[in-house]
Amino acid sequence: MYAITIPEPGGPEALVWTEVPDPEPGEGEVLVEVVASAVNRADLLQRQGFYAPPPGASPYPGLECSGRIAALGPGVSGWAVGDEVCALLAGGGYAEKVAVPAGQLLPVPEGIGLRQAAALPEVTCTVWSNVFMVAHLRPGETLLVHGGSSGIGTMAIQLAKAVGAKVAVTAGTKEKLDFCAELGADVLVNYREQDFVEEVRRATDGAGADVILDNMGAKYLGRNVDALAVNGRLAIIGMQGGAKGELNIGALLHKRGAVTATSLRARPLGEKAAIVAAAREHVWPLIASGRVRPIVDRELPMSDAATAHRVLEESGHIGKVLLVVP
Amino acid sequence: MYAITIPEPGGPEALVWTEVPDPEPGEGEVLVEVVASAVNRADLLQRQGFYAPPPGASPYPGLECSGRIAALGPGVSGWAVGDEVCALLAGGGYAEKVAVPAGQLLPVPEGIGLRQAAALPEVTCTVWSNVFMVAHLRPGETLLVHGGSSGIGTMAIQLAKAVGAKVAVTAGTKEKLDFCAELGADVLVNYREQDFVEEVRRATDGAGADVILDNMGAKYLGRNVDALAVNGRLAIIGMQGGAKGELNIGALLHKRGAVTATSLRARPLGEKAAIVAAAREHVWPLIASGRVRPIVDRELPMSDAATAHRVLEESGHIGKVLLVVP
Repeated sequence: MYAITIPEPGGPEALVWTEVPDPEPGEGEVLVEVVASAVNRADLLQRQGFYAPPPGASPYPGLECSGRIAALGPGVSGWAVGDEVCALLAGGGYAEKVAVPAGQLLPVPEGIGLRQAAALPEVTCTVWSNVFMVAHLRPGETLLVHGGSSGIGTMAIQLAKAVGAKVAVTAGTKEKLDFCAELGADVLVNYREQDFVEEVRRATDGAGADVILDNMGAKYLGRNVDALAVNGRLAIIGMQGGAKGELNIGALLHKRGAVTATSLRARPLGEKAAIVAAAREHVWPLIASGRVRPIVDRELPMSDAATAHRVLEESGHIGKVLLVVP
Repeated sequence: MYAITIPEPGGPEALVWTEVPDPEPGEGEVLVEVVASAVNRADLLQRQGFYAPPPGASPYPGLECSGRIAALGPGVSGWAVGDEVCALLAGGGYAEKVAVPAGQLLPVPEGIGLRQAAALPEVTCTVWSNVFMVAHLRPGETLLVHGGSSGIGTMAIQLAKAVGAKVAVTAGTKEKLDFCAELGADVLVNYREQDFVEEVRRATDGAGADVILDNMGAKYLGRNVDALAVNGRLAIIGMQGGAKGELNIGALLHKRGAVTATSLRARPLGEKAAIVAAAREHVWPLIASGRVRPIVDRELPMSDAATAHRVLEESGHIGKVLLVVP
């Protein structure tokens, strides 16, 4: 098969579409013939040599895909060859075939095209596990989403609105904020021109955000704690603004707040399967009913993954960038 | 009545036993004739002028007491004049009488003397709310308790052992560590001579602590994150080592960890009542059965609160220091 390989870490040009051996489905795995994958920030780090795949994972990038089941490994039940699926991966999505633990498979939701479905696994599992399973966002509470127009952001807005929460977002352009508003965001903050702490407080009668979904890490740590409401929960899922920051424990204690930091990729199979099952139970019906939809910025041929990485690096996109097997 | 007042913030000598007006029980409150109170670190801060009572609270120090109900305010049911109780307070325990919201009252557990019962409310509510309600310590997990011989520490050791957890403690002397061992602590770390990160890892096959109960704040923040296991929860309840520290978000994310910081005193009545009810439900039976006991270092006359504060400042005590109404 063909896959995107990284012979030497570097810029987007480091991604090389080349022939490699087919993967074999192991015990409890299925082999998926990939139709599309999608780009995640972690892929950019992996390309640069900063984010090695966990032990046992495919060496190729790609944390999600959609496609058809081509073969079942030993001990798999509940799935059949030919099933249209999408899947959460520990790697290997940028390829014509990938072996996936069965617990990480999801059916393609009703009404969603097979290519589009590649936009779903990472954002639904990341948002559901952080905003709902870890931070327990409740109806009537306020969620602040940084990077509201990203793949994660667009899913977080929709899911939070679907459960009856108020949603504030940050983004860097009017076009992105307008799109967030179309998805239902109530409070729009242009981080280039406005202070999100002040804007979130203003929109909540001074209370602050009950939950914050953050991709910036250190750069926003202090202001995120400032923006938290009493009993607020800051869920960090990315470190685009650095990994080490000053935590004002006094401010956190005053608010009885919580700071969590998670990633999906390194979790053991059982935890991933539990998250995938929860996304299927809670998010899939919302997608099937049309209440929540995948947001796709554009589709590019997988062999041109370099262009897709440049799109993410320039941050001009809204939603997910898909890579379609040529 | 008499109470300990603080005419001018300062050292222990700032505490003055003097005559003041009696408190009146308001709607939903009872008046307790105090038999004993107990000293908490927060009292030392209040004495120094750094920890003002929350709005509406008594201006006198004292976050817990035991005694007898002397009068019921309007709207109180389930309690009667003469009942022997202990109580969680927002202040005012260093006094002959105190008005207490009924939701913060607890019966004196079977087998416990009325004076001794003053040692229970803060430690049981703090440990139960943090270690169990927030951090969800489970049987078979490892709890690391800093300051294992403190009032909080001695209760945390006993409760964690009672639910089947493994317990590691830090303390500064062999005598204190020996006492922790008598209470059931499995791993003893003298923080003056040993590195708790290394010792906790060694005792857990490299895994680390699932829950850490921390009173040091900034000074231990980095090492506490290092000592956490995957999916670990750091519960900060004090800042004896400072309020601002560097958080390694990358390390926290790698572990999918959580950092929480809480205090009891500033919580609204409903939250306090829920914690008190949980302590009564889960901790009181363990005390009545003798499985868990209050640890009292010494009793001093309340009029000599200054000496009690000096004892805490010198950290020579094990367990709680009680103040008995003369």
